[in-house]
Amino acid sequence: MSQEKKISVRETVYKKNDDLAEEIRKNMKNKGKLFFNIMGSIGAGKTLLLENLAVKLSTHYRVFVINGDIATTIDADRIAKHGVKTVQINTGGGCHLNANLIAKELEKINIDDFDIFFTENVGNLICPAAWDVGAQMNIVVVSITEGEYVVKKHPIIFKDAEIAIINKCDLDGLGFDSQVLEEDASKIKSGMKVICTSAKTGQGIDDFIEALGIEIPRDE
Amino acid sequence: MSQEKKISVRETVYKKNDDLAEEIRKNMKNKGKLFFNIMGSIGAGKTLLLENLAVKLSTHYRVFVINGDIATTIDADRIAKHGVKTVQINTGGGCHLNANLIAKELEKINIDDFDIFFTENVGNLICPAAWDVGAQMNIVVVSITEGEYVVKKHPIIFKDAEIAIINKCDLDGLGFDSQVLEEDASKIKSGMKVICTSAKTGQGIDDFIEALGIEIPRDE
Repeated sequence: MSQEKKISVRETVYKKNDDLAEEIRKNMKNKGKLFFNIMGSIGAGKTLLLENLAVKLSTHYRVFVINGDIATTIDADRIAKHGVKTVQINTGGGCHLNANLIAKELEKINIDDFDIFFTENVGNLICPAAWDVGAQMNIVVVSITEGEYVVKKHPIIFKDAEIAIINKCDLDGLGFDSQVLEEDASKIKSGMKVICTSAKTGQGIDDFIEALGIEIPRDE
Repeated sequence: MSQEKKISVRETVYKKNDDLAEEIRKNMKNKGKLFFNIMGSIGAGKTLLLENLAVKLSTHYRVFVINGDIATTIDADRIAKHGVKTVQINTGGGCHLNANLIAKELEKINIDDFDIFFTENVGNLICPAAWDVGAQMNIVVVSITEGEYVVKKHPIIFKDAEIAIINKCDLDGLGFDSQVLEEDASKIKSGMKVICTSAKTGQGIDDFIEALGIEIPRDE
């Protein structure tokens, strides 16, 4: 197969994905739904963050979480405990979710039964960057154990992100310099929100929800 | 493009890679060289582990390290400080090294100038699993911050590994149950060596070197 043909096949695949993603995005917006794509490496703490979000949001909103993983339903099961609807997509060897996988899951439900949708994408900072899932906002979660050069090393995934979450901020003494990450993030995309969270202690979770544009009605 | 054609193109690509990897493996063995492929997620501590190995090995052996990363030469620079030769392959968006990338780097040097070769593969637990680089042994490094279900979630990469390193064992209080990981690893591949290390304190590094089959001559 010639190089040219290879490129053209690849472009067609991406184009098809992007078109479907755009369709999902439009459809969700028209229906007044929110759809967020949470990306991050394994161990960044995406699942525990989503558990935190589930606890805070589920009393006011109907939440649907699509978990992507190579194997097992461990993550979806963890989140489901907090009163939100979850579905686990096992990708086999696939390193990312894509618009087609999302569309298939959305076909199985009535979208109007839910208000807010999340994906927990497959755990890595590389492949999910190239595959639009149709979300209205991309969030990259990194753990301070990944080191402050994580943006420099993975510029592509941060380019399309509106929020960077620095998670596990409760872990002290690791010598993580969050300023380096913040500066790199703002160079890649000015206005990117960088929020320090601890899914373990709850630090920053309210700021995260605010950055997502979700209002939590005050308890009367 | 039909599904059948897609599969046949993919199989041809893998086959070509596997053949070249086998060629590299044979050539290295014939020359009496050791070649290890270090895989693991970002933040697992691969680079600091390689720095530890570099310090211990470089007084007795000539070591060559091929670093794979999406962007930057940060990792190669860190390892090079310890008196070993490094080269950084920036894959752009590519999520793994492959036999062709390795072969190209080996062509640029005289293999006989070195004794031991390492790759630090691109940081994730998914793509590198599918791409043989021609090493004689695969090592998967995980950090205890990734949780004890990491083998269950990423079975494919552990299937072809001879050694699983549980790194950052110095971090206490994270509730990591290493027995779960050890049991899962032995189910996937009986005889897989599981070693707890701390690249920070040096714990387990000698055991790791022994498991690699490298002898360090005693100082007289």
